This record gives sequence, C-alpha cells and structure tokens, in this order.
Amino acid sequence: MIRAMGITHDHKVETGIPLESIGDSKYGWSWVDFNEASAEEAEQLDHFFHFHPLAIEDCLHVLQRPKVDYYEGYEFLVLHALDPETLNTEEVNLFIGDKVLVSFHHRRLKEIDDVWNSLAGRAQNRKAWARGPFVAAYMVIDALVDQYFPCVYAVEDELDELEKQGSRESVEVLMNQVFDLRSRLLKLRRTIVPMRDLMYRILNSQHIQGEKEPRAYFADIHDHLLKLAEMIETDREMTADLRDSYISLNSNRMNGIMKTLTVITTVFMPLTLIAGIYGMNFAYMPELEWRYGYFAVLGLMGLLSIWMIFAFLKRGWFK
Amino acid sequence: MIRAMGITHDHKVETGIPLESIGDSKYGWSWVDFNEASAEEAEQLDHFFHFHPLAIEDCLHVLQRPKVDYYEGYEFLVLHALDPETLNTEEVNLFIGDKVLVSFHHRRLKEIDDVWNSLAGRAQNRKAWARGPFVAAYMVIDALVDQYFPCVYAVEDELDELEKQGSRESVEVLMNQVFDLRSRLLKLRRTIVPMRDLMYRILNSQHIQGEKEPRAYFADIHDHLLKLAEMIETDREMTADLRDSYISLNSNRMNGIMKTLTVITTVFMPLTLIAGIYGMNFAYMPELEWRYGYFAVLGLMGLLSIWMIFAFLKRGWFK
Amino acid sequence: MIRAMGITHDHKVETGIPLESIGDSKYGWSWVDFNEASAEEAEQLDHFFHFHPLAIEDCLHVLQRPKVDYYEGYEFLVLHALDPETLNTEEVNLFIGDKVLVSFHHRRLKEIDDVWNSLAGRAQNRKAWARGPFVAAYMVIDALVDQYFPCVYAVEDELDELEKQGSRESVEVLMNQVFDLRSRLLKLRRTIVPMRDLMYRILNSQHIQGEKEPRAYFADIHDHLLKLAEMIETDREMTADLRDSYISLNSNRMNGIMKTLTVITTVFMPLTLIAGIYGMNFAYMPELEWRYGYFAVLGLMGLLSIWMIFAFLKRGWFK
Amino acid sequence: MIRAMGITHDHKVETGIPLESIGDSKYGWSWVDFNEASAEEAEQLDHFFHFHPLAIEDCLHVLQRPKVDYYEGYEFLVLHALDPETLNTEEVNLFIGDKVLVSFHHRRLKEIDDVWNSLAGRAQNRKAWARGPFVAAYMVIDALVDQYFPCVYAVEDELDELEKQGSRESVEVLMNQVFDLRSRLLKLRRTIVPMRDLMYRILNSQHIQGEKEPRAYFADIHDHLLKLAEMIETDREMTADLRDSYISLNSNRMNGIMKTLTVITTVFMPLTLIAGIYGMNFAYMPELEWRYGYFAVLGLMGLLSIWMIFAFLKRGWFK
Amino acid sequence: MIRAMGITHDHKVETGIPLESIGDSKYGWSWVDFNEASAEEAEQLDHFFHFHPLAIEDCLHVLQRPKVDYYEGYEFLVLHALDPETLNTEEVNLFIGDKVLVSFHHRRLKEIDDVWNSLAGRAQNRKAWARGPFVAAYMVIDALVDQYFPCVYAVEDELDELEKQGSRESVEVLMNQVFDLRSRLLKLRRTIVPMRDLMYRILNSQHIQGEKEPRAYFADIHDHLLKLAEMIETDREMTADLRDSYISLNSNRMNGIMKTLTVITTVFMPLTLIAGIYGMNFAYMPELEWRYGYFAVLGLMGLLSIWMIFAFLKRGWFK
Repeated sequence: MIRAMGITHDHKVETGIPLESIGDSKYGWSWVDFNEASAEEAEQLDHFFHFHPLAIEDCLHVLQRPKVDYYEGYEFLVLHALDPETLNTEEVNLFIGDKVLVSFHHRRLKEIDDVWNSLAGRAQNRKAWARGPFVAAYMVIDALVDQYFPCVYAVEDELDELEKQGSRESVEVLMNQVFDLRSRLLKLRRTIVPMRDLMYRILNSQHIQGEKEPRAYFADIHDHLLKLAEMIETDREMTADLRDSYISLNSNRMNGIMKTLTVITTVFMPLTLIAGIYGMNFAYMPELEWRYGYFAVLGLMGLLSIWMIFAFLKRGWFK
Repeated sequence: MIRAMGITHDHKVETGIPLESIGDSKYGWSWVDFNEASAEEAEQLDHFFHFHPLAIEDCLHVLQRPKVDYYEGYEFLVLHALDPETLNTEEVNLFIGDKVLVSFHHRRLKEIDDVWNSLAGRAQNRKAWARGPFVAAYMVIDALVDQYFPCVYAVEDELDELEKQGSRESVEVLMNQVFDLRSRLLKLRRTIVPMRDLMYRILNSQHIQGEKEPRAYFADIHDHLLKLAEMIETDREMTADLRDSYISLNSNRMNGIMKTLTVITTVFMPLTLIAGIYGMNFAYMPELEWRYGYFAVLGLMGLLSIWMIFAFLKRGWFK
Repeated sequence: MIRAMGITHDHKVETGIPLESIGDSKYGWSWVDFNEASAEEAEQLDHFFHFHPLAIEDCLHVLQRPKVDYYEGYEFLVLHALDPETLNTEEVNLFIGDKVLVSFHHRRLKEIDDVWNSLAGRAQNRKAWARGPFVAAYMVIDALVDQYFPCVYAVEDELDELEKQGSRESVEVLMNQVFDLRSRLLKLRRTIVPMRDLMYRILNSQHIQGEKEPRAYFADIHDHLLKLAEMIETDREMTADLRDSYISLNSNRMNGIMKTLTVITTVFMPLTLIAGIYGMNFAYMPELEWRYGYFAVLGLMGLLSIWMIFAFLKRGWFK
Repeated sequence: MIRAMGITHDHKVETGIPLESIGDSKYGWSWVDFNEASAEEAEQLDHFFHFHPLAIEDCLHVLQRPKVDYYEGYEFLVLHALDPETLNTEEVNLFIGDKVLVSFHHRRLKEIDDVWNSLAGRAQNRKAWARGPFVAAYMVIDALVDQYFPCVYAVEDELDELEKQGSRESVEVLMNQVFDLRSRLLKLRRTIVPMRDLMYRILNSQHIQGEKEPRAYFADIHDHLLKLAEMIETDREMTADLRDSYISLNSNRMNGIMKTLTVITTVFMPLTLIAGIYGMNFAYMPELEWRYGYFAVLGLMGLLSIWMIFAFLKRGWFK
Repeated sequence: MIRAMGITHDHKVETGIPLESIGDSKYGWSWVDFNEASAEEAEQLDHFFHFHPLAIEDCLHVLQRPKVDYYEGYEFLVLHALDPETLNTEEVNLFIGDKVLVSFHHRRLKEIDDVWNSLAGRAQNRKAWARGPFVAAYMVIDALVDQYFPCVYAVEDELDELEKQGSRESVEVLMNQVFDLRSRLLKLRRTIVPMRDLMYRILNSQHIQGEKEPRAYFADIHDHLLKLAEMIETDREMTADLRDSYISLNSNRMNGIMKTLTVITTVFMPLTLIAGIYGMNFAYMPELEWRYGYFAVLGLMGLLSIWMIFAFLKRGWFK
C-alpha cells in the first residue's frame, strides 16, 4: 500500500493524494509511505523517485544494519523498529529529500501510523515546518526509539523482581530466568547499539554540522540511546553477578549436602562395625557371656557417636 | 516551592525576592531555585524564562543521563545527586545564563540547601563574582560530587573489613557481602561514570576553551570524578578476586569433606565385610572353632585399618 | 593458468586474448586472472607487469592478512575468500591499475569465476565502466564477502536450534556442539574482522577521499562486514551464555544426584545399625525374648524412616 | 620542617638558607622542601608563595590522583611515592616555577632526601642547570618511579617461584599466595597507571611541545612507566592463569577422590550383602548345610571383586 | 667484540676495518656491531660516537621495552630478539645515523650474524643503497621479526594437535598442556605487542612521513607483527575455550562417577538392610520358620533391585 500526504504552503495537510501530485507546487512538502508494499509498488522507488540502486536494494533486502547514506539530493536512512513481544527487529527505510519524505517498511508499524495520524490530525508548530521532511523524519525516529524504552524497562523490572525474591524459588528456576534475561538483553543490544552508533555518526557528520536546531533534536535521540545502551550494559553485568551468586549458592548447598552425608556415614559406620563384630559366630568370644555385655556395647556406641558429633561441632561443620 | 535570591552590584545578597524582580537592574545576577515544584510552578520555566521546550521536557521527565546542552543565551545541565542511604540518584537541572542561574529538582536536597545558605549567609570572594551564575553552578556541582565520596568510602571500608576478617565468618555470609558490595558498586558507577564523561565533555567543549579560571574549577571536579571512577573499577576487581578466592576456598573445603568421607568409607567397609563374613551361619566354618579366632580377626581388623590409614597418609590426603 | 579479457572502448568484451595484447589501444581496459598459476606463470607478475617485489612476495607467500598497499600506478590488495565447508581461508591478490586489473589466487575460486563469467557474458551498465578495473575489483570483493554470509548463517541456525532443543540431548553432547560453534566463530572472525578493518582503512584513505561513487560501493561492503562482525560477536556471547547455562545445569543435576545419595544413606544407615544390633549374639539381650520384640523393631524402623523423610521434606530437599 | 637550598649563578649550592633569601639575586634558582610541614609552615604556601588556593587545597588534602595543573608562572604536580613494604602511596606535590622548585610531602621520603643530598653534595653538569628547577623536578620524579621497580620485581620473583614449585605445596596454600599476589598487583596498578597517564599528558601538552631536551627526559620516565604497567598487566593475566590451573587441579583431585570412594563402595557393598544373606537365620537355607558352602561363598566374593576391578580398569578409571 | 664494515661509494664491502677509519671519505657508509661488548668496548659509544647519555644508559641496562628515540643526527631503536627455545627476549639496540649504523647487543645473535654475512658476502641492489644504514637497519629488524614466526607456529601446531587428539589423554595431562601453551603465548605477546606498537609509532611519526620507499618496508614488518599479534590473541581465546571444554568435560565425568556411586548405594543399601533384618536373633520371628522364607526373601531382593534399576533408567540416569 502506498499512501501520500501533501502539506500546503499555508500548513494545511491533505492526505490520500495521488502519487503524481506530490510534486505539485501547491504543496510545501509531502510524505509518501510505502506500507507493506507489493513488488509493483516497490518499483515506484526507482521509476517515480529515481533513487540510487544501492539504496533500493537495501530497502528490499532485509538484514541491514542501521545506517545513513548521503546521496545527491536526499539522505537514506535504515532504522530498526523493535517488536515489544518478540524483541525481533523490523526495518524502516527513510529517504529524506528537500521537499519529500519517503518511508518504506515491510510490515505495518504502529509507530509510523501514530506519527502519520498526528501529522494529519492537528495543526503544527509553524516554525518547525521550515524543514518539513526533516522534522517528520525526526518524529518517526523519535517514535521508534521511544518504543525501545518499555522493552528495556520490562527487563529491568524482572531483574529487580529477581534480586528481591532471592531464595524463595529453586536455584534451577532462578537460573533459567537469569539466562532468559541475558538473552533478551543481547537481542535488545543488537538493535540499540547500532542505532546509537548511527545517531552518533549523524551528529558528527558534516551534513548536520553547524545547523543548531536539527542537532538539538538528534542529540536528544542520541542521549536516549546512550542511556539505553548504558542500562543494557549495567543490566548484563547485574545478570552476570546474579548468575555467579546462584552458582556460588549452589556450591554452598552442595557443601551442606556433602557434610550431611559425611557426618551420617562417619557416625554410623563404626557403630555398624561394632554391631557386626558382636554378631560374629566365633565359639569363644568372652564379651558375649558377660551379664551386661549388651548394655556395655550399647553404651559404648552412644558414647562413640556423641564424641564424633562433638568432633564435627568443634571443626565447625554445622556452622 | 520557588525561591529566588538577588545579588546586588555591591555584592549584597537579598533572599526571598519575588520572581518578577529578578530582572531588576539593581541586581548583578540572581538565582532561582525550583524545589519540589508543583505543576503550575514548573510552568514558569516556559512562561517566565522561555526556556527551550526540549530542555523543559528533560526537567519534567526523570531518567535522563547527565548531560549539557548549549542553547542561545544559556547552558542547560542535567546532574545527578546520590542518596547516600539507598544509592538512588536524584536529578538536578541547572540553567546557567549570563545573569541568572535556575536550578530545578523534584526533591529537597541537602547539598543545594547548603550552597544556598552559604551564599545567603556570608560575604563572598569579590573576584569570583564576576561570573556569578557560573560560580554558583560550580558550587552546586562541587557539592553534589563531594556527596559521592562518603558513598564510595563506605564501600571501600566494608571491603577492607572483609579482606581482613577472612575466614572467621561462614563462606555463605561472606559471599552475600561480596555480592552486595558488587551491586552497590554498580549503582555508584551508573551515576559517577556519566558524570565524569559530562565533565570531560564540558572541559573539551569550545564554550569553555581558553577561559583559564573556569577550566581550573571544572578540571578539579573532573579530577575527583576520575579518582572516584578508578576507585570503583579497582574495587570491582577486588570484589571479583574476593569472590573467586571464596569459590576456591569452598572448593578446597569440599575436597576436605570428600576426603573425610572417602577415608571413613574405605577404612570401615572392609572391616564391616570381615565382621559380616564371620557372622555367616554356615555349618562348616573352621575359623569359628579356633580358640583365639575372635582375637585373630580383631587383630587383623586393626592391622588392616592401620595399613589403610598409612596408605592415605602416604598419598598425602591429610596434608 | 593465466586468462585475460579485454574490454573495448565500445564496451564489447573479448576473452581468451593473449597476455601481450592487453596493452592494445583498442581495449579500454583489461582483466588478467592468474588462476592456480605455475611458478613460470607467476614470474609474469615481475617480467610482464613489473610489480613491486614486496607485492609479488606477498602474492607467493601465503599467510598474509588482508591489506591494501598503494604503489606508483596501481593499488595492491590482499583479500580472503572463505571455504564454506572447512572455513579455511584462501588468499586472493588484486592489482588495480588505471587500465588493467590483475587477480592472483592459488586455488580455483567459484566467486572469481562467477564475476568473470558475468562480465564476459552480459552487457554492462555503461556509466560504471568509466573506472573499469576499479568496478571489476569491487565486483570481486563483493562476491567474496557475499560468500561469508552463508557461513555465518549456518552457525546462527545451529545456535537457534541449540537454544530451542534445550534439554532433550545429554549435556555432554550439547557442550560439544557449543564448543564446536565457538571454534567456528573464532575461525570466521579471523577472516571477517581483518577484512572489515581493511575496508575501513580503504574508506578513510586519501586515495578514495572525495570520490563519491566508489565510496558508496565500498561503504556498502563495509556495512556488510560490520554487520557480520557484530553478528559474530553477539553469537560468541550467546555461546558463552549457553555454555554457562549448561555448566550450571550440570551443577544443578549434581546437586540432585548428591541429594539422592545422601537421603538414601541417611535413611538406611540407622536402620541397618538397628538390624545389626539385634543380630548380636550376646547371651543376655532381654528384647530378644519379648514376644513381639521383632514387630516392635520393624515398627520402630518404619517410624524412623518416615520421620527422616519428613525431616528432609521440611528442609526442602525434594523441591 | 621547611628547608631551602639556593644555587648561585656560578653553580655553587648553599643549603639551610632562610626562606626570605630565596628570591635573592645572587641565586640562579632555589629549592624549598616542605617535609612533614606543620600547619603554620604549610601556610607559607599561601602567604609567601601566593600559590593558587585550589593547588594548596590539593596539597593539604590527601587522596588526589597524580595530575598536573598549569597555573600562571608555575606548574603544579601531584605525584605518588610507593612504600615498598606496604605498597601504600604517599603524595608528593611539586610547584615548578622559573626560578624556584617547591616540594611538599606529609612524610619524610628517602627518595627526596637522596635527590636533595646529591644536589647539595656534588658539582653538577652545567648544561643541565640552564633550566634548574625543571631538572631538579625531573630528578625527583625519576627517583620516585625508580622506587616502583623493586616492588614489581618482588611480585615477579614470587610469581616465578610459584610457577616452578608447582605441586609441592597444598593447593590451598598456593591459592592464598596467588590471591595475595593479585591484590598486590592491584595496589601497584592503582599507583603506576595514573602516573603513566600523567607522564603521557605532560608529554603531549603544549607546554612541553617543541622543547627537545625536557621531552627526552620525560619520555624516558614515561617508557619506564609503560614497561611497568605492561608487566603488571601480564602478571595479572599470569596469576589468573595460575588460579585457573589450580582450580582445575583441585577439580581433578576431586575426581580422583570420588573415584576412590565409588570404587570402594562398589566393590564392598555387594560382598557385604552376600555376607549378610548368609548371616540370615532362616530355618531352611540349603547352602548353609553344604560342606564347602563357606569356601564357595568366599571364592564367589573373590571372583566378584576381581571382575568389578577389571570393569573399572576397562572404563579407564585408574588412568 | 666490536666489528665494523665499510661500504665504499662503488658498493664494495670491506669488513674488519678499524673503528677509526669508519668516518673515512672512501666509505659511503659503515656498520659497527657491538657483539657481547666488554665494559671498555661499550665506552666507545660515548667516547667515539658521542651518543646521548640516555641512549647509552638504555643500551647498558636491560629490561627496556621496544622504543624509538629521535636524537640530533641519529635515531635510537631498542628491539627485542626472541630465543626460540626459552622464548626469552634479548635486546638489540640500533643507532641509525646518516652514514653509520651502530648495533649493540649483549649476546651473539644468529639473526644479526646472518644479516652481517649476507651484506658482506653478496652484491646488493644498488638502488637500495641510497639510504644505506637505513636499509641495513630494516634488514636487521626484518630478520628479528622473521624469527618470531616459528615460535608462534610451534604453539599453533601444538594447539591443533591438542584439538584433534581430544579425549585420548587424561584430562590432567591435557590441562597441563593448555596451561603451558597459554603461558608461552603470554611470553610471546610480551615481545610481539610492544614491537607492533613500535612499528606503528615509526610508521606514523613525522620522521618517516612522506618518504614512500621506507614506509613500504616498515609497513611490511608492521603487517607481519599485526598478523602475529592477531594469531596470538586468537590462540589465547582458543586455549581459553579448550580449558573451559576440559573443565566441563571433567564436570561431566564427575556427574557420571557420582551417578555410579548413587546407583550402587541405592540398590545395595535396602538389600543389605533386609539381610540384616533376617539376621536378627529375636526369639519369635515367624518368617524364619517358613519353609521357603529364604527363597521368598531372595526373590524379594531380586524384584526390588530390578525395580530400582528401572526407576533410574526412567529418570534418564544412564543416558
């Protein structure tokens, strides 16, 4: 689907205009959105707009990293939207010309629709319109990046939850949660870090140098991405610390289990041996004839076990 | 609450002046502090001061990273104060103009109050007043950063304590302390490293270049933050070393426990078997009839156990 | 084998021309390919083309890293092709002059053949021919880098498979797969990272500075290599996480095994001792004469084991 | 204590001169050393020398990082001496003016005394005197840095010792030595790395740029610090490797212990069961009546244990 | 030993000339080699050549890092040779003047001898002689760096061997090999990385800037060192992976051992208890009187053990 809007010189917005009329002199600038475009519709990028073949190839093939290319008369941006459910990325391609903004994406995106509707529906700050397509592009990028925050917040909330809940759950369950969080953080970083690098390159390119207003806007997005990237790094370190603390917890428990086993074995083996000895069938075993031999042996066993438990206590095994 | 102070040209300080009089010609410069400002009060940032909407948005929304933005006629700083109890961060926003300093923070902060009172209460070094709002901003930042030191010192003290106390506590308790220290160091780093980067950017920006005096002041704060960041990094490595040493201590203890278990089992199992054999009820077992069979078997058991203990000693198990 | 093609000024391609005619004025430019060249053929690099001895030495000796050297009148590139089966690297050397491209490689490579055939077989975009050898070199490099993608995809697919399949396989098998993936990722990185660095150096060298068209082409390859290098880094971290999760899974299982052992030992050892005690042959053991002594002891054993299992349940050992 | 020396224009050294005479025209330059200065003596930094308040504050407060500040007419350096026993740092502050060097330190330092005495006692290279205070400062810094070497050598010697001695000591003792070395390396790095960074900043500052002679001297100190920092990094990695090798050694030993336990248990448990079975008191147990039943059972036990030991041998447990 | 060679203007080489004649006008340039120089010979560096005292000090004292210093009229290089047996480093110092090359080393080095003999023995490429001492220095450095390759190859070969051989050796032996390889890689890195950094600094210094020919030669050495440094980094990561895989192998084996122990204990303990129960000497135990009580108990034991083994099978313990 291709949809186009034209903004007239007196800041009126007309949506649903045909593609052919976007060069019309009555429009100050216009925005064409390729939304889930079919193969024929995609050909308009070449036939109607005459964009560079490398840029068009980048639109049609997925698996690009966020980037900016400067072509004669327009800038080409590849951006990444983030699906909050699956944390998969969706590519958004922007061509920013002087009088036209062309956006191209393979799937319908709520963020783009929101910007589209907000532009179509309400009067705009007149000063901002001076560089119309540029400001609209800023609004799209801002909407995409704002979408990252809830994804990172969700991870941080679960992490806080995990830190508090501590030992209520079994270590195995906690471990799985930690590894799940780590893998989600990796996915988020795969999107956010290249976007941050892209914004950095845009801010430091000569194309934007010296223009105060656009710098401020992009610097704002860059600040958000910096913050997000830092949160992700810190969260990765926190999950690593949690993992290590669970591993050491596990190892402590193992120690406890082994101590129990050793104490039980050490206490009962000698007693069992004594019982075994007096169960032997030798013809001549004088103790067996003693009147209170049986009680003497029971007493010996009792003393022996008390002494061994004291020995363990003294070596600090029950601390 | 909004409070304002004006400094007259002859360096007298008047506090509690109304907002409208801060532009008054009798004041050399003035400081307006938005302290736990209500929504209506916050609107004065726009209505009265006409600050840039991006900067005002940064004031009202929390979760910014420390940063500096250069606007026409004023500089906008986002800074982080640190709550020494919880190590949570509190944002402080400063607008530094030529004749006015505006500070904005959501919670009452002791550090700001201290600077306010010190300014209101005592005569100032006259030379410093030449760039009044700037120097006041320096005093605020310095007060905020000075607040970081006790937080880091507290961690270092506990770390020293931990290194000394060594094996008195159980490994599990020590481990928990180490992981608690690591998580506090992470929180501190989250505040201190962005602040350090901010100071670095301010020092290297063209806005301050060439001005000797302010450079010296900010370089001083930057040095403190560098020192803090280095302390945190070294402390993180020390906690990592401590954690590894506890893990290896645990593993050594496990070895000791397993050795005990194995020695006990190895010594007693054969003895028990011998006792079991002579407890069998076969009709024809010649040893049972021997006069000193019983004592011979007891002697055999004693020799066997002595030999096994020697074997373990020789293999160095009790070292 | 040496093969040569000449491209005439009216963009006709003639293949199989003799080496001597490549300087012929009827050709706009030409491409000479040294494919599995014999020692005598390799001498043509010196005798016919007079390339620099250092460059020729680099051709003949393997184990170079990807690099570019700028000589008088030509550029010399060392590139790496990747064998998708073994992930071994194959060197491709390119000499890019104004009117001639010379490629040199020790083994027949499908990628080079493909570019050769595509050039020989179809009409070309005329504009691109302006810098003929340069564009042909771009096509070769692009073909080599495109070959990296399936290698990395294969690793990523196995990694996804591994993450999903989880606990169906034994930990030992999963571990071996993880370590195999890690070693393949290391091999891939050994090729891809130096290639990325090479493209970066080419993009930032003064030799390409200011020429818009070639920059766009090489920037495209650089983007692909950046993406590949990032994928490899993320995949290495994912395998590290998987490895750690398997190790912790192993340690959890060990805990479970030890618990089973300890419970069994703790329950049965006291019972065995009791049985041993009443198997002793003392002359006077009053319990043995009791009518229901036997059943009382059996009951005692039952109660004891139930109590011990409850104790373990209470301490959460079966969670 | 404050002590001062003046160097006359004809290169004679006069020590013990009063502070007031150091500006005297007969001296080419002079050195004032504040050694364990009292509070009143420290005030001379302000009253007599009029140094900048920020620099004086840095002198009086400890816990600075090494740094250089450029003030009007003098340079201010904070340096770190290292106590070879405790590896604690001691601050040395230098003010380097055109005609005076002022050193300030809280504790008597052998390194400073050595430089002082060597200056006071022997005729100097005349050429070097052209920039007197500067060269004296170099001598002080060189003496401080030379003091670092024995500290690092001591660690390296112990490390070599540790690598050779290997398995003679118990793992627990070796581990403690490794962790002690690591913590000493961390302490050394805390001093040496900031000193290296300081020298780097001095070498690259505009204040020294272009002056060949001083550059060569500071480059020499910088080289020493680079070497030291590299040694420390390599030593940290070697200790990490040693630690990992000890951990794996421990884990191997644990395996050995568990194998012993398992073999013993596996061999003796079935034998004990057999003995137990023939110890049962059933009225009708035909084997008990056999003439050679007892010997048959003993033979069975022998065969069983030989077979089990063979089984373990075959599974490679004793390798 | 000091030896000198002079190269006449018509490219004849005269060796064994006395030190005094090296400034002779008949020689285009000369090379003086201090080979295992005695203390008196070393003094010629000062007396005859008047080199800078800092450079001479660097010659005489060992433990320098590779570096280049630019003095008036000559360059001073400290280089590292590598002993292929012990991987210890040997320092080589070069003074490169316009008309003289002075090399200084404490031990006889095969690499230096080879270059010396190759210069003395054969006619040289005349073009290269234009900058005689410089090219000779290049030959020395190249010979030293070429010596590094067999050292790194030896490590890589052992590493490949180790990867293939896998589980044939005991884990303890493999581990020791891995740790030995890691320590050799550390030693190699200690030499190669500073040499790489040195070459980088030479390539980027202003002293060589703009001179095409020497750049190409040093760039070649730099490429070799880059490749070596990358190989070492990758090899360190491979050894780390191998170490981790052995540790996990060990942990898997431990699991197997513990399972064996647990299965044996779980199966035999209940059987032993049953045998013990029927070995008790109670006066009234009805089962003992049953005709087939003995066989019933044997059957019960059989069923119990089969059931337990099935239970373990079902829980997947023998997978």
